[in-house]
Amino acid sequence: MTGLDVRLATRRDGSRDGELMLVNAAGTRWARAEGIARNLQALLDNWDRLAPRLAERRRELDAAGWDAAEDFDAAGCMAPLPRAYQWADASVYRNHARLIYQWRKEPIPPRYEDEPLVYQGGSDVMIGPQDPIVAVDEAHQIDLEAEIAVITRDVPLGATLQQAADAIALVVLLNDVSLRGLIPGELAKGFGFYQSKPATSFAPIAVTPAALGAAWQGNMPDLRVRIDLNGQRFGEPHANTEAIFNFAQIIAHLTRTRSLGAGSIVGAGTISNADPASGSACITEARVRQILAGEDESRLQPYLRHGDRVRIEAIDDAGRSVFGAIDQRVQVVGKG
Amino acid sequence: MTGLDVRLATRRDGSRDGELMLVNAAGTRWARAEGIARNLQALLDNWDRLAPRLAERRRELDAAGWDAAEDFDAAGCMAPLPRAYQWADASVYRNHARLIYQWRKEPIPPRYEDEPLVYQGGSDVMIGPQDPIVAVDEAHQIDLEAEIAVITRDVPLGATLQQAADAIALVVLLNDVSLRGLIPGELAKGFGFYQSKPATSFAPIAVTPAALGAAWQGNMPDLRVRIDLNGQRFGEPHANTEAIFNFAQIIAHLTRTRSLGAGSIVGAGTISNADPASGSACITEARVRQILAGEDESRLQPYLRHGDRVRIEAIDDAGRSVFGAIDQRVQVVGKG
Repeated sequence: MTGLDVRLATRRDGSRDGELMLVNAAGTRWARAEGIARNLQALLDNWDRLAPRLAERRRELDAAGWDAAEDFDAAGCMAPLPRAYQWADASVYRNHARLIYQWRKEPIPPRYEDEPLVYQGGSDVMIGPQDPIVAVDEAHQIDLEAEIAVITRDVPLGATLQQAADAIALVVLLNDVSLRGLIPGELAKGFGFYQSKPATSFAPIAVTPAALGAAWQGNMPDLRVRIDLNGQRFGEPHANTEAIFNFAQIIAHLTRTRSLGAGSIVGAGTISNADPASGSACITEARVRQILAGEDESRLQPYLRHGDRVRIEAIDDAGRSVFGAIDQRVQVVGKG
Repeated sequence: MTGLDVRLATRRDGSRDGELMLVNAAGTRWARAEGIARNLQALLDNWDRLAPRLAERRRELDAAGWDAAEDFDAAGCMAPLPRAYQWADASVYRNHARLIYQWRKEPIPPRYEDEPLVYQGGSDVMIGPQDPIVAVDEAHQIDLEAEIAVITRDVPLGATLQQAADAIALVVLLNDVSLRGLIPGELAKGFGFYQSKPATSFAPIAVTPAALGAAWQGNMPDLRVRIDLNGQRFGEPHANTEAIFNFAQIIAHLTRTRSLGAGSIVGAGTISNADPASGSACITEARVRQILAGEDESRLQPYLRHGDRVRIEAIDDAGRSVFGAIDQRVQVVGKG
């Protein structure tokens, strides 16, 4: 399946799963996948048979200059998978763990360097690139987390690294919104995250590893991820430096005691570089950096507030936005 | 939607989601739901419109004595939802928490009596009533956990108790298989369960609350759950005594910061009664009871081994098996 160069998105058509869109390399035009798959999950369910047909359709569209296609507009997109059967997220960026556990005044978890640290996410509601981040209370300390994830085909129990790598169908960009104010109390119970992880947001375009070309290196995205907050640059860390595990290793870890179904979303966690000049991919990191630099408590970067705007995109070496942009406003319920 | 008296199952037909089956009250006959919904998720996606049509179909079949129907055989069933978008499990039986935290030599989690303790489960692979419990190593300490869960319609963010209760579409019985040997190491990391919770098994028949009749009391199942291990009675606790929260309260808790999509499975955790005569719904509890009774370590109830047989069913006051039986063998990979 390597070599399939395809970019996909999901059009908001009133259905729960949306309509599958085939997108051109520039991210400017889209065409229907008529007769191949009605939505992305249906494609993933039959990837081996259907993905090559989509790649062929794409070559035909390329040859015809996408003339019969329509303009691509992220505003009309849902998450690539508006609901998924599995969302498991790792935390493989050493610097993120270092800063977050300083914030929590706790040691980094045992075996952090030996095997991927993962949590089981909820996947019944995944939101689109321009959907609002809905929260109920600013006191929950609404934070963004810019991450790369992959979407898999079926992965067997006990997958080898090669099976895990081969199972990667698509690469996506997401905002793993976290409610920091709820995390300490929730984790103190020992059962992991639930209320502290509301709906995750996704950039519009999911791309195959082959479509990333040289930007897919060692089962990781060789990309910078650019985060803007209210129009100001907030961070631009590189996603393929300082990660202690790659996606094949994360997937293999996830299949140690069970298989993964087609359409599983597997994340690598908040991107983070040690160099402060790269900025941060979450607000908590920025606050810890300020604290370490001796900043006064009153001047710390605030958590997200009603009306704030978060923009996240991944940039390749040629300066292109690979997945399109997440561009969301924060909407605190009861604040209009 | 109250009053819809329907029993449903999912036939293994080679597809990922199976075929929706309409089952008679005795659990002995089934008919297709042709023209209404092809599978259970499709029904849940349009519950308000389609469920009344299924109830009408059921009344027609009742009137005709289910003559045109076929014999129901659990061996041909998948889990009611062979893959789900959400599986969130609570732990509301006080005695289970008491015994488990004695085993773990830790205090019961903070706020245990104030709000439901929940964990986010994985839902991409749900297994059927007679599928084997596949494990990779007996040293993982393979345990069963007999539980009742509900399957919801869409539930809004911030649901009231009434909205939560109204969102309950179906009630199911499940075996939340747990790998006890992996739990301490995993929970020590603070991110909750992942590898320690392999695929969950389900009894074949999902029933509406109305179909439970008097056995649905206060948003809880008024049923005994009977667990047999290798043909010996292992436990028969009652599911509606000694629970500190009901399903409406659990669902309301789950929607505090996010909505739940149609087809979310919400569990109440391992059923447990303080009276030792009721036995146990998991092996760890039985072991702790033995330890508290002064039993020697060498004589403790062993965890599940290759070839062991687990049978779980829920029994109403009339002695009927409400959901059909979970009846599984343990299969340890590499042991044939």
